[in-house]
Order: sequence, then structure tokens, then C-alpha cells
Amino acid sequence: MNADQRKALQTLKTAKGQIEATIKMIEDGRYCIDVSNQILAAQSLLKKADLLIIGQHLRHCVMEAIENDKGDEKIDEVMHLLSKVIGK
Amino acid sequence: MNADQRKALQTLKTAKGQIEATIKMIEDGRYCIDVSNQILAAQSLLKKADLLIIGQHLRHCVMEAIENDKGDEKIDEVMHLLSKVIGK
Amino acid sequence: MNADQRKALQTLKTAKGQIEATIKMIEDGRYCIDVSNQILAAQSLLKKADLLIIGQHLRHCVMEAIENDKGDEKIDEVMHLLSKVIGK
Amino acid sequence: MNADQRKALQTLKTAKGQIEATIKMIEDGRYCIDVSNQILAAQSLLKKADLLIIGQHLRHCVMEAIENDKGDEKIDEVMHLLSKVIGK
Repeated sequence: MNADQRKALQTLKTAKGQIEATIKMIEDGRYCIDVSNQILAAQSLLKKADLLIIGQHLRHCVMEAIENDKGDEKIDEVMHLLSKVIGK
Repeated sequence: MNADQRKALQTLKTAKGQIEATIKMIEDGRYCIDVSNQILAAQSLLKKADLLIIGQHLRHCVMEAIENDKGDEKIDEVMHLLSKVIGK
Repeated sequence: MNADQRKALQTLKTAKGQIEATIKMIEDGRYCIDVSNQILAAQSLLKKADLLIIGQHLRHCVMEAIENDKGDEKIDEVMHLLSKVIGK
Repeated sequence: MNADQRKALQTLKTAKGQIEATIKMIEDGRYCIDVSNQILAAQSLLKKADLLIIGQHLRHCVMEAIENDKGDEKIDEVMHLLSKVIGK
């Protein structure tokens, strides 16, 4: 596991903790705006983890594929992913 | 707890499960694109939960405040939240 | 036209100018990263305009409907819009 | 200009037309929800144009840089851009 994957893993564990806290907030009848802000914080962590994963994918798998003349397929795959990440 | 809150709660529990699965995928050295797709699925669930929370907030807290002539403050609060949800 | 609608109008006119500038950048063969940053700036303005429109909709149409006991339909309509704005 | 840049250019021209239509809708006092939907349509076109620009950047500039052992800097630049596109 490389440094970016370790950071992504840590970020996802923090996100999981945030979601557990949010579940508890709803069960405790906490104010909706506070619940929504907590959900936003978890989303922010997921975006950060996703960027780490995409970044290390470009730096390792895609770069290696390009060096072995197999870059086109990998870039198509990344663009297909990004079209889902960025949305319509 | 109303129906939308219960649905949001269930959706967050599913999202938590997705994140646990994603953590395992990284630990198992699974392919980055698959990891990223799993993160996207969790984000999608968080958005769904957030919409349920915002919807029931409008239908209950905001509507009640407007009926009691205290709507302006509640709408400012919702718009402040939405500016964070929608982003810059 | 109220103050928020005037601001939204002005913001959209600025966004239009940004897009015209981006079109010229591509025609002039400018660097992709700079083009993409310019597109982001235009998106940011569109989000700002959209928030102004949604805000004044809540403050006027929705508030009025709630005061006339016709709030449910308006809130459903806003939530349908928000589900598209926030995405899946 | 390559095929993706031509498509991005065309998409931006369509987006510009959508924004002009939205400006007219506000000036004509059209219903807020319809205005907001029109803004969403323009945002969707900007995302599409941005994906085309990012895709051809990866396929040309980044791939070339990697083949010339200068990939790291280009990938850092792309990731910096994506962190803004994907948001926090």
C-alpha cells in the first residue's frame, strides 16, 4: 500500500466515524440543519479519499500503462470514471 | 421520528456499510477504479440522505416557522446550508 | 423584478462573458488547464445565480403558498428541483 | 484543434445560448423553477465541455509528458485541477 492509499484509508475511516455520529444525531432527534452539516462533512471526506485514489491511480497504473504503450485504454477508463464523479 | 427521517437513517446505515466495504477493498489491494466507484456509491447515498433531511426540514420546521410569522430566519438558515451543499 | 433576481441576472451576464472568453481561449489554442479553470469560474457563477433564484423562490412563492395553505405542492416542487441540483 | 476541442467549443457555444435564453426568461418574469432548470441545463453543458477538455489534455499533453519522463509535474497539475472540479 502506497502513501496515498494509506491516507485514503485513514480518510475513509474518519468518514465512517462521521456517519456513525450522524446516525446517532438522527436517533437523538437533533436539529435537521446540524444533521445535514454533518452529512456534508462526511461527503467532503469521501471526496478527499476519492481524489487520493484517483491521484495515485494516475501516478502508478496510468503512468505505467503509458510507458508500456497501453495508455489509451487506461485514459478512457479514467475519463469514464471522471464523467461519473463530475456528474451531468 | 417521521418517515423521511427513518429513510435517511436507513440510507446512512447503508452508506456506512458501503464505506466499510471500501475500506476492505483498499486493504485487500483491489483495483483503484473499483475503489473509486464504491466511494461514488457511498456519496450517492449521502446525497440521498441529505435530500431526505432537507425535505423534511422544509415540510416541518420551515413550514411551521412561516405559519408563525418566523419564516425569514429559517429560510436564511436553509439557504446558508444550500450554499454549502451546492458549493462554489 | 426583486433584488435577488437583479443580482442573478447580473451574475448570468458575467457568466455569459466568461463563456465567451473561454470560447476565444480554445480558438486561440490556449493551454487546456487554463481553459478548464475558466470553465470552472463560469460554473461557479451559474451556481451563484441558481442559489439566488432558489432563495428568492423560497422567500416569495413558497412562503406565500404556505401562508395560503398550499405549501405542500410548492415544497415538493422545490425538492424535485434540489434533487437535480444536488445530483445522484 | 483536435476533435475533442471542437466538440468542447461547440458545447460552450450551446451553453452560451442557454444562458442568453435564461437571461431573457428572468427579464420576462418567468417562473423561478423554470429559470433554475434552465441554469441546470447550462451547467450540464459546461461539465460536458470541461470533461472533453480534461480528456484531451490527458490524451495529449499528459501522455506526451509521461513519454518524455516529465509526467509527475503534469499529473500534479491535473490533480490540482480535479480537486477544484470535484470540490471539497
